[in-house]
Amino acid sequence: MKDFELDKRILADCHCLGKVHNSWIMLHKDSNVRWFIIVPETDVSEWHELPINIQSQLIEMASLLGAMLKRELPCDKINIAAIGNIVSQFHLHVIGRWKTDPYWPGVVWGRSSTEAGYTEGEVDDLKKRCLECLGRLYVHRI
Amino acid sequence: MKDFELDKRILADCHCLGKVHNSWIMLHKDSNVRWFIIVPETDVSEWHELPINIQSQLIEMASLLGAMLKRELPCDKINIAAIGNIVSQFHLHVIGRWKTDPYWPGVVWGRSSTEAGYTEGEVDDLKKRCLECLGRLYVHRI
Repeated sequence: MKDFELDKRILADCHCLGKVHNSWIMLHKDSNVRWFIIVPETDVSEWHELPINIQSQLIEMASLLGAMLKRELPCDKINIAAIGNIVSQFHLHVIGRWKTDPYWPGVVWGRSSTEAGYTEGEVDDLKKRCLECLGRLYVHRI
Repeated sequence: MKDFELDKRILADCHCLGKVHNSWIMLHKDSNVRWFIIVPETDVSEWHELPINIQSQLIEMASLLGAMLKRELPCDKINIAAIGNIVSQFHLHVIGRWKTDPYWPGVVWGRSSTEAGYTEGEVDDLKKRCLECLGRLYVHRI
Protein backbone atom coordinates (compact mmCIF):
# COMPACT_ATOMS: atom_id res chain seq x y z
CA MET A 1 0.00 0.00 0.00
CA LYS A 2 1.42 3.35 -1.04
CA ASP A 3 1.73 6.26 1.36
CA PHE A 4 1.14 4.09 4.42
CA GLU A 5 2.35 5.70 7.63
CA LEU A 6 2.32 4.17 11.08
CA ASP A 7 0.17 6.09 13.54
CA LYS A 8 2.27 8.49 15.61
CA ARG A 9 0.94 7.17 18.93
CA ILE A 10 1.95 3.60 18.00
CA LEU A 11 5.39 4.85 16.97
CA ALA A 12 5.76 6.78 20.24
CA ASP A 13 4.72 3.84 22.44
CA CYS A 14 6.63 1.08 20.66
CA HIS A 15 9.95 -0.20 19.39
CA CYS A 16 9.75 -1.19 15.74
CA LEU A 17 10.99 -4.79 15.31
CA GLY A 18 10.52 -5.23 11.57
CA LYS A 19 8.09 -6.08 8.83
CA VAL A 20 6.65 -9.49 7.91
CA HIS A 21 4.48 -9.77 4.81
CA ASN A 22 2.93 -6.32 4.74
CA SER A 23 2.62 -5.96 8.50
CA TRP A 24 4.77 -4.00 10.92
CA ILE A 25 5.74 -5.85 14.09
CA MET A 26 5.97 -3.47 17.02
CA LEU A 27 6.98 -4.05 20.65
CA HIS A 28 5.23 -1.89 23.24
CA LYS A 29 7.76 -0.19 25.53
CA ASP A 30 6.01 -1.41 28.70
CA SER A 31 8.31 -4.23 29.83
CA ASN A 32 5.94 -5.33 32.61
CA VAL A 33 4.37 -7.58 29.98
CA ARG A 34 5.46 -8.88 26.54
CA TRP A 35 3.29 -6.82 24.23
CA PHE A 36 3.48 -7.07 20.46
CA ILE A 37 1.35 -4.95 18.14
CA ILE A 38 0.91 -6.09 14.52
CA VAL A 39 -0.01 -3.31 12.09
CA PRO A 40 -0.95 -4.39 8.56
CA GLU A 41 -0.59 -1.78 5.83
CA THR A 42 -4.26 -1.09 5.30
CA ASP A 43 -6.59 1.88 5.58
CA VAL A 44 -9.55 0.00 7.07
CA SER A 45 -10.16 0.12 10.79
CA GLU A 46 -12.35 -2.93 11.49
CA TRP A 47 -11.46 -6.62 11.46
CA HIS A 48 -14.39 -7.55 9.20
CA GLU A 49 -13.30 -4.96 6.63
CA LEU A 50 -9.87 -6.57 6.18
CA PRO A 51 -9.33 -8.72 3.07
CA ILE A 52 -9.49 -12.44 3.93
CA ASN A 53 -5.82 -13.01 3.07
CA ILE A 54 -4.75 -10.30 5.53
CA GLN A 55 -7.07 -11.76 8.20
CA SER A 56 -5.40 -15.14 7.66
CA GLN A 57 -1.89 -13.69 7.87
CA LEU A 58 -2.72 -11.82 11.07
CA ILE A 59 -4.25 -14.90 12.69
CA GLU A 60 -1.22 -16.97 11.75
CA MET A 61 1.19 -14.35 13.09
CA ALA A 62 -0.80 -13.99 16.33
CA SER A 63 -0.81 -17.77 16.78
CA LEU A 64 2.94 -18.07 16.20
CA LEU A 65 3.74 -15.17 18.52
CA GLY A 66 1.38 -16.50 21.19
CA ALA A 67 2.90 -19.98 21.02
CA MET A 68 6.42 -18.52 21.22
CA LEU A 69 5.54 -16.38 24.25
CA LYS A 70 4.13 -19.38 26.13
CA ARG A 71 6.90 -21.76 25.11
CA GLU A 72 10.02 -19.63 25.38
CA LEU A 73 9.60 -16.98 28.07
CA PRO A 74 7.30 -18.62 29.35
CA CYS A 75 4.22 -16.42 29.83
CA ASP A 76 1.16 -17.67 31.73
CA LYS A 77 -1.55 -16.36 29.39
CA ILE A 78 -1.86 -14.75 25.97
CA ASN A 79 -4.24 -11.85 25.36
CA ILE A 80 -5.18 -11.13 21.74
CA ALA A 81 -7.29 -8.13 20.76
CA ALA A 82 -8.31 -5.69 18.05
CA ILE A 83 -9.76 -2.64 19.81
CA GLY A 84 -8.87 0.66 18.11
CA ASN A 85 -11.13 3.00 20.11
CA ILE A 86 -8.32 5.54 20.49
CA VAL A 87 -5.95 4.72 17.60
CA SER A 88 -8.21 3.97 14.65
CA GLN A 89 -5.41 2.61 12.42
CA PHE A 90 -6.03 -1.14 12.47
CA HIS A 91 -3.69 -2.97 14.83
CA LEU A 92 -3.75 -6.34 16.56
CA HIS A 93 -2.44 -6.76 20.10
CA VAL A 94 -0.70 -10.01 21.11
CA ILE A 95 0.29 -9.77 24.76
CA GLY A 96 2.14 -12.24 26.94
CA ARG A 97 0.95 -11.97 30.53
CA TRP A 98 2.23 -13.28 33.83
CA LYS A 99 0.21 -13.93 36.95
CA THR A 100 2.82 -11.79 38.69
CA ASP A 101 2.65 -8.79 36.32
CA PRO A 102 1.30 -5.55 37.88
CA TYR A 103 -1.91 -5.53 35.83
CA TRP A 104 -2.92 -9.19 36.35
CA PRO A 105 -5.71 -10.33 36.13
CA GLY A 106 -6.94 -7.07 34.62
CA VAL A 107 -6.28 -5.99 31.05
CA VAL A 108 -3.36 -3.76 30.10
CA TRP A 109 -5.29 -1.12 28.18
CA GLY A 110 -5.69 2.10 30.06
CA ARG A 111 -3.25 0.96 32.73
CA SER A 112 0.08 0.49 30.98
CA SER A 113 3.14 2.67 31.27
CA THR A 114 6.27 3.12 29.20
CA GLU A 115 8.30 3.86 32.34
CA ALA A 116 9.28 0.23 32.82
CA GLY A 117 11.37 0.05 29.67
CA TYR A 118 13.61 -2.51 27.98
CA THR A 119 17.36 -2.42 27.61
CA GLU A 120 18.68 -2.43 24.05
CA GLY A 121 19.81 -6.03 24.55
CA GLU A 122 16.34 -7.10 25.66
CA VAL A 123 14.75 -5.50 22.62
CA ASP A 124 17.26 -7.27 20.37
CA ASP A 125 16.52 -10.60 22.06
CA LEU A 126 12.76 -10.19 21.61
CA LYS A 127 13.23 -9.04 18.02
CA LYS A 128 15.25 -12.18 17.30
CA ARG A 129 12.70 -14.51 18.93
CA CYS A 130 9.84 -12.74 17.25
CA LEU A 131 11.24 -12.75 13.73
CA GLU A 132 12.51 -16.33 14.10
CA CYS A 133 9.04 -17.57 15.02
CA LEU A 134 7.38 -15.51 12.28
CA GLY A 135 9.97 -16.73 9.79
CA ARG A 136 8.14 -20.05 9.94
CA LEU A 137 5.37 -18.37 7.99
CA TYR A 138 7.53 -18.56 4.90
CA VAL A 139 8.40 -22.20 5.53
CA HIS A 140 4.68 -22.95 5.86
CA ARG A 141 3.97 -21.27 2.58
CA ILE A 142 6.68 -22.87 0.43
CA MET B 1 -17.17 -32.55 22.74
CA LYS B 2 -18.67 -34.62 25.50
CA ASP B 3 -19.20 -33.29 28.99
CA PHE B 4 -18.68 -29.69 27.95
CA GLU B 5 -20.09 -27.20 30.43
CA LEU B 6 -20.18 -23.44 30.08
CA ASP B 7 -18.24 -21.64 32.78
CA LYS B 8 -20.52 -20.53 35.61
CA ARG B 9 -19.31 -16.93 35.46
CA ILE B 10 -20.14 -16.70 31.75
CA LEU B 11 -23.57 -18.19 32.44
CA ALA B 12 -24.17 -15.72 35.29
CA ASP B 13 -23.12 -12.65 33.24
CA CYS B 14 -24.86 -13.54 29.96
CA HIS B 15 -28.08 -14.45 28.21
CA CYS B 16 -27.66 -17.60 26.12
CA LEU B 17 -28.73 -16.89 22.51
CA GLY B 18 -28.06 -20.26 20.94
CA LYS B 19 -25.46 -22.51 19.38
CA VAL B 20 -23.87 -22.25 15.92
CA HIS B 21 -21.52 -25.01 14.78
CA ASN B 22 -20.11 -26.12 18.11
CA SER B 23 -20.01 -22.68 19.65
CA TRP B 24 -22.34 -21.08 22.17
CA ILE B 25 -23.40 -17.52 21.37
CA MET B 26 -23.85 -15.51 24.55
CA LEU B 27 -25.03 -11.93 25.09
CA HIS B 28 -23.47 -10.10 28.05
CA LYS B 29 -26.17 -8.57 30.26
CA ASP B 30 -24.55 -5.12 30.21
CA SER B 31 -26.79 -3.23 27.77
CA ASN B 32 -24.53 -0.16 27.73
CA VAL B 33 -22.74 -1.87 24.84
CA ARG B 34 -23.63 -4.77 22.48
CA TRP B 35 -21.42 -7.52 23.80
CA PHE B 36 -21.40 -11.03 22.35
CA ILE B 37 -19.25 -13.82 23.73
CA ILE B 38 -18.59 -16.85 21.54
CA VAL B 39 -17.65 -20.02 23.43
CA PRO B 40 -16.49 -22.98 21.35
CA GLU B 41 -16.82 -26.41 22.92
CA THR B 42 -13.16 -27.01 23.60
CA ASP B 43 -10.96 -27.60 26.60
CA VAL B 44 -8.01 -25.48 25.45
CA SER B 45 -7.58 -21.97 26.77
CA GLU B 46 -5.32 -20.25 24.22
CA TRP B 47 -6.08 -19.13 20.67
CA HIS B 48 -3.01 -20.88 19.23
CA GLU B 49 -4.06 -24.19 20.81
CA LEU B 50 -7.41 -24.23 18.96
CA PRO B 51 -7.72 -26.51 15.92
CA ILE B 52 -7.46 -24.50 12.68
CA ASN B 53 -11.06 -25.25 11.68
CA ILE B 54 -12.35 -23.82 14.97
CA GLN B 55 -10.12 -20.75 14.56
CA SER B 56 -11.63 -20.24 11.08
CA GLN B 57 -15.19 -20.63 12.35
CA LEU B 58 -14.59 -18.17 15.19
CA ILE B 59 -13.04 -15.60 12.86
CA GLU B 60 -15.93 -15.93 10.43
CA MET B 61 -18.50 -15.59 13.22
CA ALA B 62 -16.68 -12.57 14.69
CA SER B 63 -16.57 -10.93 11.24
CA LEU B 64 -20.28 -11.54 10.60
CA LEU B 65 -21.28 -10.28 14.05
CA GLY B 66 -19.02 -7.24 13.76
CA ALA B 67 -20.41 -6.35 10.33
CA MET B 68 -23.99 -6.76 11.60
CA LEU B 69 -23.33 -4.53 14.63
CA LYS B 70 -21.91 -1.75 12.46
CA ARG B 71 -24.56 -2.06 9.74
CA GLU B 72 -27.75 -2.59 11.68
CA LEU B 73 -27.54 -0.86 15.07
CA PRO B 74 -25.25 0.94 14.06
CA CYS B 75 -22.29 0.81 16.44
CA ASP B 76 -19.29 3.11 16.00
CA LYS B 77 -16.51 0.58 16.64
CA ILE B 78 -16.09 -3.15 17.10
CA ASN B 79 -13.78 -4.57 19.76
CA ILE B 80 -12.69 -8.20 19.36
CA ALA B 81 -10.64 -10.01 21.98
CA ALA B 82 -9.58 -13.30 23.48
CA ILE B 83 -8.33 -12.57 27.01
CA GLY B 84 -9.23 -15.24 29.55
CA ASN B 85 -7.17 -14.03 32.51
CA ILE B 86 -10.09 -14.57 34.89
CA VAL B 87 -12.28 -17.13 33.08
CA SER B 88 -9.86 -19.61 31.54
CA GLN B 89 -12.49 -21.39 29.41
CA PHE B 90 -11.74 -20.13 25.90
CA HIS B 91 -14.13 -17.39 24.81
CA LEU B 92 -14.02 -14.69 22.16
CA HIS B 93 -15.50 -11.24 22.83
CA VAL B 94 -17.17 -9.32 19.98
CA ILE B 95 -18.35 -5.97 21.31
CA GLY B 96 -20.22 -3.18 19.58
CA ARG B 97 -19.23 0.18 21.03
CA TRP B 98 -20.61 3.67 20.78
CA LYS B 99 -18.71 6.90 21.25
CA THR B 100 -21.50 7.78 23.70
CA ASP B 101 -21.30 4.59 25.80
CA PRO B 102 -20.15 5.08 29.42
CA TYR B 103 -16.84 3.23 28.95
CA TRP B 104 -15.73 4.93 25.71
CA PRO B 105 -12.90 5.19 24.70
CA GLY B 106 -11.72 2.76 27.37
CA VAL B 107 -12.23 -0.97 27.23
CA VAL B 108 -15.17 -2.69 28.90
CA TRP B 109 -13.23 -5.30 30.87
CA GLY B 110 -13.05 -4.52 34.55
CA ARG B 111 -15.58 -1.71 34.19
CA SER B 112 -18.80 -3.35 33.03
CA SER B 113 -21.93 -3.88 35.02
CA THR B 114 -24.97 -6.10 34.64
CA GLU B 115 -27.20 -3.44 36.25
CA ALA B 116 -28.08 -1.85 32.91
CA GLY B 117 -29.99 -4.85 31.63
CA TYR B 118 -32.05 -5.71 28.56
CA THR B 119 -35.79 -6.21 28.35
CA GLU B 120 -36.92 -9.63 27.14
CA GLY B 121 -37.95 -8.04 23.83
CA GLU B 122 -34.50 -6.53 23.35
CA VAL B 123 -32.82 -9.88 23.98
CA ASP B 124 -35.16 -11.52 21.45
CA ASP B 125 -34.38 -8.83 18.87
CA LEU B 126 -30.62 -9.25 19.31
CA LYS B 127 -30.95 -13.04 19.23
CA LYS B 128 -32.82 -12.80 15.93
CA ARG B 129 -30.29 -10.42 14.36
CA CYS B 130 -27.41 -12.48 15.65
CA LEU B 131 -28.63 -15.87 14.46
CA GLU B 132 -29.79 -14.41 11.11
CA CYS B 133 -26.33 -13.03 10.41
CA LEU B 134 -24.61 -16.22 11.58
CA GLY B 135 -27.05 -18.29 9.51
CA ARG B 136 -25.14 -17.03 6.48
CA LEU B 137 -22.32 -19.31 7.57
CA TYR B 138 -24.30 -22.26 6.33
CA VAL B 139 -25.13 -20.55 3.04
CA HIS B 140 -21.40 -19.86 2.60
CA ARG B 141 -20.60 -23.49 3.15
CA ILE B 142 -23.11 -25.09 0.79
